[in-house]
Amino acid sequence: MRNKPWADGYIKAHSDYIVTDPKNWLGKWQDRFEKKQPLNVEVGTGKGQFIIRNAQEHPEINYIGVELQKSVIATALRKFMEAPLPNLQFVLTDGADLDEIFLADEIQKIFLNFSDPWPKKRHAKRRLTSPNFLKNYQKVLAPQGDIEFKTDNRGLFEYTLVTMNHFPMTFDYVSLDLHQSPENETNIETEYEEKFSPNGPIYKLIAHFNS
Amino acid sequence: MRNKPWADGYIKAHSDYIVTDPKNWLGKWQDRFEKKQPLNVEVGTGKGQFIIRNAQEHPEINYIGVELQKSVIATALRKFMEAPLPNLQFVLTDGADLDEIFLADEIQKIFLNFSDPWPKKRHAKRRLTSPNFLKNYQKVLAPQGDIEFKTDNRGLFEYTLVTMNHFPMTFDYVSLDLHQSPENETNIETEYEEKFSPNGPIYKLIAHFNS
Repeated sequence: MRNKPWADGYIKAHSDYIVTDPKNWLGKWQDRFEKKQPLNVEVGTGKGQFIIRNAQEHPEINYIGVELQKSVIATALRKFMEAPLPNLQFVLTDGADLDEIFLADEIQKIFLNFSDPWPKKRHAKRRLTSPNFLKNYQKVLAPQGDIEFKTDNRGLFEYTLVTMNHFPMTFDYVSLDLHQSPENETNIETEYEEKFSPNGPIYKLIAHFNS
Repeated sequence: MRNKPWADGYIKAHSDYIVTDPKNWLGKWQDRFEKKQPLNVEVGTGKGQFIIRNAQEHPEINYIGVELQKSVIATALRKFMEAPLPNLQFVLTDGADLDEIFLADEIQKIFLNFSDPWPKKRHAKRRLTSPNFLKNYQKVLAPQGDIEFKTDNRGLFEYTLVTMNHFPMTFDYVSLDLHQSPENETNIETEYEEKFSPNGPIYKLIAHFNS
């Protein structure tokens, strides 16, 4: 995505809904929402459609959308500002920092949607489902929490089945063609998913850490 | 497959290569081969192409092809008799009996290829990768042994990823499109796989039991 000159100013002007200094909010995230309620986090929230629709459908849950790229999260924020909600916040930061901005057991669910597959073996550590990232998620996820992972990238899904199995994590749901599965009825699509799913199957895995 | 009137007589006439009273061979399988060497077993060996080609390529391994249907195994046997090998035996029996015909730790590798998906939920226990079957395989597999599972049935593969993960077993290899994977170079196809793979991906999983 190209640089967007308006992004900086737009983010500053909407600081009620987006955080750019997340370490200062450690232990205080619930203060940013109307109600104190369970917290779900999407890592790599992109243009925001998935997390915005989730927040619309589930007012009983608080959502945080984390995104590394400023111009991308500014686009998500702009979409959100068409109809702001009291249960969704955006955070401009790296998903790798999750354990520095959230307390242990603070998150109920982590969503990973269509994250970068980093197909080269030497880049495997950058994949959001590599063991080091999983270790990080484990710290901040509540004991009953889980990870919901979707991708259309076969190699990334194969890799993730193995890394989560090895961690070890327990699989609660596996679909190798989500859009053909009964569970698709309640599926909320990302922008990318809408655009690219005609090209092949969408894979989905829900898993939790063994306690 | 239709009944084959010649099957009974053919099987009796080739009792050097096929066993119909497997419980009598408990602890004595190696006596049926030219050399005492590691033992690999295919459960549901069908028309035999997979296990025959394996036996041709790996004279250093002994193979047993287990099949429940007489007319099917007779076809496999007839194919095999075109060029018999000293390292392959067929066994007419139910895969569920594995722990009654093999000793603990006797098998190095179990192959499950394109087994019946039993798609109805109430038939799940009949699937060759259901927990009760896995328990059985665990008894007869050597500590370093593994299971190699292939299917073109999405539902059966999703089910198997979950049952093996829950058992728990550790995944050594996952492919969601074997014929597009580098490992396909050494893949040995079954008759079914040759015929039906143009219809969709072949899934493959290799896994071992946690010791």
